[in-house]
Amino acid sequence: MKKVRFGIIGLGNQGSHYSCDLFAKGAIENGTISALCDINPSKIKWMKEKLGDGNIAYFENYTEMLDSGLVDAVLIETPHYLHPEMAIACLKRGIHVVCEKPAGVYTKQVKEMNRAAEESSALFGRMVNQRTDCLYRKMREIIAEGGIGKIQRVSWIITNWFRTKRYYDSGSWRATWDGEGGGVLINQCPHQLDLVQWVTGLKPCAVRGFCGYGKWHDIEVEDDVTAYFEYENGATGTFVTTTGETPGSNRFEVSGTLGKLLCENDKLMLYKNSVDSLKFSESTDKAFGTPECVITEVETDGKNPKHAGIINNFANAILGLEELFVDGREGIYGVELMNGIELSGWKGGERISLPVDENEYLACLCEKRKTSRRRNVSDDTVLDTKGSFGKK
Amino acid sequence: MKKVRFGIIGLGNQGSHYSCDLFAKGAIENGTISALCDINPSKIKWMKEKLGDGNIAYFENYTEMLDSGLVDAVLIETPHYLHPEMAIACLKRGIHVVCEKPAGVYTKQVKEMNRAAEESSALFGRMVNQRTDCLYRKMREIIAEGGIGKIQRVSWIITNWFRTKRYYDSGSWRATWDGEGGGVLINQCPHQLDLVQWVTGLKPCAVRGFCGYGKWHDIEVEDDVTAYFEYENGATGTFVTTTGETPGSNRFEVSGTLGKLLCENDKLMLYKNSVDSLKFSESTDKAFGTPECVITEVETDGKNPKHAGIINNFANAILGLEELFVDGREGIYGVELMNGIELSGWKGGERISLPVDENEYLACLCEKRKTSRRRNVSDDTVLDTKGSFGKK
Repeated sequence: MKKVRFGIIGLGNQGSHYSCDLFAKGAIENGTISALCDINPSKIKWMKEKLGDGNIAYFENYTEMLDSGLVDAVLIETPHYLHPEMAIACLKRGIHVVCEKPAGVYTKQVKEMNRAAEESSALFGRMVNQRTDCLYRKMREIIAEGGIGKIQRVSWIITNWFRTKRYYDSGSWRATWDGEGGGVLINQCPHQLDLVQWVTGLKPCAVRGFCGYGKWHDIEVEDDVTAYFEYENGATGTFVTTTGETPGSNRFEVSGTLGKLLCENDKLMLYKNSVDSLKFSESTDKAFGTPECVITEVETDGKNPKHAGIINNFANAILGLEELFVDGREGIYGVELMNGIELSGWKGGERISLPVDENEYLACLCEKRKTSRRRNVSDDTVLDTKGSFGKK
Repeated sequence: MKKVRFGIIGLGNQGSHYSCDLFAKGAIENGTISALCDINPSKIKWMKEKLGDGNIAYFENYTEMLDSGLVDAVLIETPHYLHPEMAIACLKRGIHVVCEKPAGVYTKQVKEMNRAAEESSALFGRMVNQRTDCLYRKMREIIAEGGIGKIQRVSWIITNWFRTKRYYDSGSWRATWDGEGGGVLINQCPHQLDLVQWVTGLKPCAVRGFCGYGKWHDIEVEDDVTAYFEYENGATGTFVTTTGETPGSNRFEVSGTLGKLLCENDKLMLYKNSVDSLKFSESTDKAFGTPECVITEVETDGKNPKHAGIINNFANAILGLEELFVDGREGIYGVELMNGIELSGWKGGERISLPVDENEYLACLCEKRKTSRRRNVSDDTVLDTKGSFGKK
């Protein structure tokens, strides 16, 4: 069968990982790398040394790569601000595209990308590799089936994103309003901000963010966040994250009237009530009673194909072999939530209704960018991302 | 040796438990019950049937009991609003007194009680029975010794306080602004609001409270709370509680630069870093590295004498055999924190600096009391409190 010819824009940590560790090692069954692109000649030189230039064309300009006729599909692995404009350039040319997380920095930009996707014949995917995790897929399934009843509380403590000074010094754009558009929320947490909505099937209707800016590192953006969520059904939530603590926690709990799900330490536990707890409360003659509850470790299919899973599915979807697992347009939900928390943080913890006012957000962000300072470090670094993708 | 003669004011759930299950069964080595008091004759009748009236005098008026010369010490087990005035009445007479949690409903009242304690020759204790728990004592010890370094985050999810309609219907004063002065914060959580400060050695300097009033029950006070804490050292905290969820969680985590302590499922785990994480961040050449961390289950002395422990210590302190374990004046800290969260909740989540403005709090509370509605239920009920004191 014909293989999908992929081009990658951006040969930093992720782009080089996909090229050298996934494609070059045969992890993408129906896809091959036909072109690589980076504005930095030293990265192209380095990649040529690793992968050769027999079957791969190299570009410093991404539109030249798109117009070369050499790529059927593109993976965008550039700094966040560039994601939408590059995805739009692909979609307008009918080139299939997978956008790295986050979908963008602000919703106004992401909406334009989504409109381009709607008008395009090409497929639009997203690198939400943690959606492939069997534990999160199973949580979503149980909740969607009503397995824990009406959701009452969502709690995610995701504080195992420790990052060192060396990490922040690996790129001048890192951890700056102008280069990244945010800190731990936009760089480390897009997965959780996506999953917390995808798994529960609920989107917060209002949010508060309490953010520490450069609290644990010499950076201008947030590296410590506590967020509070309100949901339309009356549920509430907390979301706590930082890059300044270790050993952190990764504890995702969703409670409902029929029990709760707890995902921690690479296990999913189901606490299942015999009856709905609020109905029990109304009818029992016991003041301190609770419904009977059975606790089990949930079995899953054990699969977690991660980045390779997303790329394989995308290639297969292009070839008509599978349904697309992730509609790229859903990327806006994580950006909405991130923007809401960030805007609240800038406004001292004010309650922000979602969706955020896209113009207000963009105006505030532009203000931040005006005085933003790029880090005085080399941009030639490529980090080994092994062990950086989060643990449960 | 002479035994301390105790009187108990209030023969509800707690008062009857101490009388019948602790004193009558010999759990208080150097103390005996000499008098019992309740304004409700049916409770006195019931207690007489259980304990007889040979060695115990019964009173409907507590000042008569205090003036009878029959009691050396008193346990106050009445509704919250009455705690300070009754404690003051004891202290002014030189009668030793243990005040049930909470110390009071509002800080202005508690400060008066503390002043009376300072001017009295009598001992002033508090029923903070969870401070006797080996796990919490050990946590406090490790933190005080600097075992987890500088504290960065405090997180307590204490949602296992499920209460049924029957519980709220067991007293007309329950879960009303006028009768109790609050909900889950003042009735169920005084232990945690005390421990979260006693264990960490830190008091929040500001707080936000997001409260649901009668969210899961037909009550006027809060039964669902998410609070956010700020500390002067830069640490932050979350405190989440409810009486509307089951099975709830009880997870108390304190993170610092040298590791973290996690108390859950009746176990205390210590995560100990080889070096301070912030110093590691500054000096390492690893972008994604973390200090080495050793995880151990902490050994404790295994003791948790609870209510009997508090009463035994109090009797022994009166007799000069032991130091008083808990200075009753420390009760104000839990009330400060409770008032701060409650006031923030009333003001829609506004940031409240601690200590709260005592006059503002009292004025707001009085407003609530004006329209408060007592529950239309009998006050003769005494509940079996077995299993009601919280699980870890």
